[in-house]
Amino acid sequence: MEKIRVMIVGYGNVGRGVVESIKRNPDMVLAGIVSRSPERVKKTVTDVPVLPVNEPDVWMKELRPDVAILCGGSKDDLPKQGPEFARYVNTVDSFDNHSRIPEYFHAMDEAAQKAGHTAVISTGWDPGIFSLQRAIAGAFIPGAHAYGFYGLGPKGGLSMGHSDALRTIPGVKDARQFTHAIPEAIDKIRNGENPVFEPGDMHTRECFVVLEEGADKEAITKTILEMPGYFAPYKTTVNFISQEELDAKYKGFPHDGIVLAAGVTGNGNTALSEYRCQWGSNPEATANVLVAHARAVVRLAREGKSGAFTILDIPASYFSLMTKEELLAHCM
Amino acid sequence: MEKIRVMIVGYGNVGRGVVESIKRNPDMVLAGIVSRSPERVKKTVTDVPVLPVNEPDVWMKELRPDVAILCGGSKDDLPKQGPEFARYVNTVDSFDNHSRIPEYFHAMDEAAQKAGHTAVISTGWDPGIFSLQRAIAGAFIPGAHAYGFYGLGPKGGLSMGHSDALRTIPGVKDARQFTHAIPEAIDKIRNGENPVFEPGDMHTRECFVVLEEGADKEAITKTILEMPGYFAPYKTTVNFISQEELDAKYKGFPHDGIVLAAGVTGNGNTALSEYRCQWGSNPEATANVLVAHARAVVRLAREGKSGAFTILDIPASYFSLMTKEELLAHCM
Repeated sequence: MEKIRVMIVGYGNVGRGVVESIKRNPDMVLAGIVSRSPERVKKTVTDVPVLPVNEPDVWMKELRPDVAILCGGSKDDLPKQGPEFARYVNTVDSFDNHSRIPEYFHAMDEAAQKAGHTAVISTGWDPGIFSLQRAIAGAFIPGAHAYGFYGLGPKGGLSMGHSDALRTIPGVKDARQFTHAIPEAIDKIRNGENPVFEPGDMHTRECFVVLEEGADKEAITKTILEMPGYFAPYKTTVNFISQEELDAKYKGFPHDGIVLAAGVTGNGNTALSEYRCQWGSNPEATANVLVAHARAVVRLAREGKSGAFTILDIPASYFSLMTKEELLAHCM
Repeated sequence: MEKIRVMIVGYGNVGRGVVESIKRNPDMVLAGIVSRSPERVKKTVTDVPVLPVNEPDVWMKELRPDVAILCGGSKDDLPKQGPEFARYVNTVDSFDNHSRIPEYFHAMDEAAQKAGHTAVISTGWDPGIFSLQRAIAGAFIPGAHAYGFYGLGPKGGLSMGHSDALRTIPGVKDARQFTHAIPEAIDKIRNGENPVFEPGDMHTRECFVVLEEGADKEAITKTILEMPGYFAPYKTTVNFISQEELDAKYKGFPHDGIVLAAGVTGNGNTALSEYRCQWGSNPEATANVLVAHARAVVRLAREGKSGAFTILDIPASYFSLMTKEELLAHCM
C-alpha cells in the first residue's frame, strides 16, 4: 500500500509536532512543508522540500500531497487559509474558536464540495477528542450535560491564547498564562447536580508576566484584570517575574483537561462518565490527533466523499492503523 | 418524523433497562416485547404487546419493529438468536464474550447481509464505549496500549458472570461477586511503564456466598479458589454470609471501570488518556447504550447499509438526538 503523502502548512509548534508524529505512523510520509517564510524553515529542516505557501502550482506538482495539515492559527490564518487550501487538496485543521465553528464548517464545506475535496475541521483534543466525548456522553446518558475543565494538575495548563493576549499589552516583554480548574465545581458535577456555571465558576487564571524596563506594574495589572472575555470574568492572579524565572520554571506546553457528564438511569441510579487527558506537550498532542485525522480524511476521499467533516462524522476505525480484523480482536 | 419502533427481545435486567431508557429518548417508541415466557412478562408489562419469541410472523406483523434490541445472554442466547433475528429485522445486541467477538461478527454480518438488514453487535459499556476508547487512545497516542480496569470504587463492581459461576456450585444457595481493581497496577500505567500484566495482576475478586443448609464450607471454598478462568488466576477472598446480609448489603448492580492509555509524543513528552465511568446500575447503563445504537442502526439502514457493524464503524453523530447544526454549536 502506498504511503499517505502529508504536506504541512505552517511550521510552528504544531507543525513541528506533526513532523515528529508522522515518524510514528508507518503508513505516512512527510511530503514537504509550505510556509510563509520558507528560508527560515529551511535553516532547521533539510530532509524534505520547503516551499512558499503562496505557490500552489509549485507545491501541488512537487509535493503531490494526499492531504494538507493546516497548522496555522484560528484567529488570522485558518478562516482565509482553510477554504483556499480546500480548493487544491484534502485538508485537516485544528480551528478552535468554538463559537465560530458552525460558520467555519459551512465555509469549508462549500469550498471542499465545490472542488471535490475532503476537509476535516476543528480537531485536536479540544475541539476534537473532547467534542467526541461530549457527544457520546450526551447520547449514552440521556439528559446528561457535558462539562469541560482544564488545568487539573498542580501546575495547571498553559493557555496559548491567553499567553498571547498578555503579550499584546504594551510594557509586557513576555508572559505565560496557566489555567486552573476549580475542584469544587468538578465535585458538583460528580455529585450529579448538573449545575449552571458562569465561566468564572469553573476556572481561575494565573499569569506570569515579565515587564519591559520601566513598565507600569499597576497599570498593566489593571489592564489584565479588566480584559473582556480573557480575564475579566475570572478570578485572576498576576505575578511579575524575571525572564530567567519564566524560562526556568514555566517552560514547555503542558496541558490537561477533563470532560464530565452525569445523569440518571432507570429509577434514580446514578451514571457518571469522565474523560481525562494529560499532555506533556499540548501542540504535540494536537499534532498527533491531526495526523490520525489525516489518515481518516484520505480514507473518506478514497471512498469518494467530499465536503467538510468533524470528528463526530467519522467512525473511530478510520483513525486507526489497525485492520478491521485487528480492531475486532484487540479493541472490541 | 415518525418515531423509531423498538422491539425488546428478552425481558431480564437489560430488557427492563431498555423500557426505561426509551422513555427518555423522545424519537423512539416501544413497539412491544418478545419473550420465551410471554405469560410471565405480561404479569408486569401491560401497556405494550408481549408476544412469544418463536413466532416471527406474528411479531413482525403486529409490532412492525424498525429495530430489535436483543437482551439475551452471550453464552447461550445470542450466538443462535442473533443470526436468526437478523433475518427478520435490524438488530442491536451486547454480545460480550470478547474472545469470540470476531466469530460472532462474521456470523451476524453474513446473516444480516443476506437479508439486507443492519446489525450492530457487542455494544454497551464494555464492549462498547470501552472499545471506542481503546481504539481512539491507540490511534491518537501512537504506540500507546490501552488497559481496562473494573471496580475502582470502595465496594468494587458486581460481576454478573462470576456471580452466576458461584451459583452453579452445589451447596451454594446464592452468591454475588465483586471485582476490585489493584490500584498499584493503575499507577504503573499512569507512570508510563506500559507494563505486561497477567489477569491476576490487575484485579482481585471478592465473593459473598450464602450456603445451603449443611453445605461443606471448606470444599466450596476450594472449588471457588480453583475454578479455572473465573477465580484460579486471581487473588480471591470468600465470605460466607446470610441471605439477609447479602440482600441488605450487596443488592443492586453497581459497576464502574476505566480505560487508560499512556505514551509519548515528540521528544519524551508524556501523553495519558483515561476514560472512567461509574454506573449505579450496570444493566441500565448497557440498556442506554443499546438504545442509542438502535437510533444509529436505523439511520444506517435508511442509508441502505446492511451487514454487521460495531461502535468502531459508526460516527458519533449517529448516536445523538442532536441535529447536525446542534452538534456543531453545542458539542464541538
